[in-house]
Amino acid sequence: MTSLADLPIRDDLRGLTPYGAPQKPVRIALNVNENTHPVPPEVIAHVTAAIEREMRSINRYPDREFTLLREHLAGYLGGGLAPEQIWAANGSNEVIQHILQAFGGPGRRVLGFPPTYSMHAIIATGTGTQWVEGARDDDYRLSPETAAAAVERTDPDLVFLCAPNNPTGTPLGLDTIAAVYEASRGIVMVDEAYAEFMPEGKASALSLLEGRPRLVVSRTMSKAFAFAGGRLGYLAAEPALTDALRLVRLPYHLSALTQAAAVAALEHAAAMLATVGAIRDQRDRLVVELARLGYAPHESWANFVLFGGVTDPHATFERLLEHDILIRDLGIANHLRVTAGTEAETTEFLEVLGRINR
Amino acid sequence: MTSLADLPIRDDLRGLTPYGAPQKPVRIALNVNENTHPVPPEVIAHVTAAIEREMRSINRYPDREFTLLREHLAGYLGGGLAPEQIWAANGSNEVIQHILQAFGGPGRRVLGFPPTYSMHAIIATGTGTQWVEGARDDDYRLSPETAAAAVERTDPDLVFLCAPNNPTGTPLGLDTIAAVYEASRGIVMVDEAYAEFMPEGKASALSLLEGRPRLVVSRTMSKAFAFAGGRLGYLAAEPALTDALRLVRLPYHLSALTQAAAVAALEHAAAMLATVGAIRDQRDRLVVELARLGYAPHESWANFVLFGGVTDPHATFERLLEHDILIRDLGIANHLRVTAGTEAETTEFLEVLGRINR
Repeated sequence: MTSLADLPIRDDLRGLTPYGAPQKPVRIALNVNENTHPVPPEVIAHVTAAIEREMRSINRYPDREFTLLREHLAGYLGGGLAPEQIWAANGSNEVIQHILQAFGGPGRRVLGFPPTYSMHAIIATGTGTQWVEGARDDDYRLSPETAAAAVERTDPDLVFLCAPNNPTGTPLGLDTIAAVYEASRGIVMVDEAYAEFMPEGKASALSLLEGRPRLVVSRTMSKAFAFAGGRLGYLAAEPALTDALRLVRLPYHLSALTQAAAVAALEHAAAMLATVGAIRDQRDRLVVELARLGYAPHESWANFVLFGGVTDPHATFERLLEHDILIRDLGIANHLRVTAGTEAETTEFLEVLGRINR
Repeated sequence: MTSLADLPIRDDLRGLTPYGAPQKPVRIALNVNENTHPVPPEVIAHVTAAIEREMRSINRYPDREFTLLREHLAGYLGGGLAPEQIWAANGSNEVIQHILQAFGGPGRRVLGFPPTYSMHAIIATGTGTQWVEGARDDDYRLSPETAAAAVERTDPDLVFLCAPNNPTGTPLGLDTIAAVYEASRGIVMVDEAYAEFMPEGKASALSLLEGRPRLVVSRTMSKAFAFAGGRLGYLAAEPALTDALRLVRLPYHLSALTQAAAVAALEHAAAMLATVGAIRDQRDRLVVELARLGYAPHESWANFVLFGGVTDPHATFERLLEHDILIRDLGIANHLRVTAGTEAETTEFLEVLGRINR
């Protein structure tokens, strides 16, 4: 039997294991920050009807320019964005890969601020881009001064920020984003995967796009939009920047089914996002109740809470799993992360956690 | 207005334009080797029902291991292949990219034999893999001796073969594949995108997999299978080789909708492939009739015919387009390529071509 080590794999891949949160069939999955509310029946019917139409020409290649989808994404984001400013791919991971293929690669480096979305560093490495790190302030915050100093110290070709940050939930101020942009000569990407969960009235980095041609704001339909299975990530930026991505994307990278399903879901955006308020409530409840249980939850603007004060994260993770509750152990000392689920899921998580020794 | 040249794009991308066959709305599209027969209604209904079910959990991430799809692809290929030997991605372009990310990259090189599938060289460059070329024999053929000599001369980390070859349609003997494998130390990928159109009884490179752990056979559902819009490419190889691809694929790269639609289509494989015989007939008719018109068609085992003897390919292409018929000008001197469509499409193409000066 041939083993991986017998094959002429790249030296930098030898000994690695694939990325991946455990995919275990559990009753209560609060580990990967999905919207745990199922999609409403009327949206299912609308998407299904769109797929039925699309299947009549499934023997043909899809629109390589996903024109209708870009129009719908621009309309969803609002703020006067044009379809020419939109790019999309099979999940925001692929969007990030396109950014790094166009602006990173061998001999270039990208600056990030861990703990942050772990795929940023992984995709950087996969595209041959050097991953360099800046330190955060207390409680995982990132001030304009701290961030700009890291940019000046490392002179990166790209800077990746997360607003709010994952896995910490920490808000990121527009002032920090603007300071990073001013300090840098390269692409500044703000990953706003969780932006829809920010408190009402908080501005997105989209409001900074005007006049900043090196700024990119990425989004996903996998979180608030309840479309993780559909794999649709996207970004907004200058039209010229999306042209750069056309040079590196594989032709026809978005299937006709992906395009049609995403368009149909966006046509029901209000229904798809109807649960966001309830999820915010459960997030805020988690912060209050985790503190009451003696843990140290961090402020979160996302649909999850990172909490410290866990004596043995692995043991607590396993005890929850015994009750069919899956959360996330990210390897941060004395911390665990939990997704804000439905009210019933949150209640059961808190009840079981309350019976476990801290 | 910011232009592409103002952005800090990689130096090797400056001045490039994106790959792509023209996507023009025409009545008769014979340019990208699709199966021009629409999918039967019972398959549309079956796929649509599968999507409807999948939408009920679309808020959840898909099965990262696309287990059911691998089982169905293994069953479709037959020959005792196990699901562990199957890999799939969003079109065979992404499958090829995974191969190059795992086994190519900076400091490594891949050997191809042009004219061949143009994306092979483009994806090589995109992954930082050096693309090196070997010459073909007369009439675009490739003998075991010629191919093995190119391997010995270039000592590649990977060899890409096309069987039958695209854009020439040329058959590739199993003896050549075996000789390349023996001569090389690296990965040998046989791109069998058009394998279902080979004459009855001809063996696929799948029959060579046993005992050749460096051999990869890639396939697609975009051609004979009439599923180009669904974007599903796949390969068969040693289980250890598919493990290597898990190190470079982006997590959840295949959406739940892609997986469900492809599985449903594979459950109707006979219906999806019912038109292959008719397409082969039109291909053989094209070869006969193009010769009768004074052109020099090449032998084809695919669903298209490359024909020489065209005085001015651009002019002929444009004249056909005036009649709403789109074929492909690949920049091969005095040649054009046409897809074998339905009987009616082929008839109209031949009639219009017959009225154009050679």
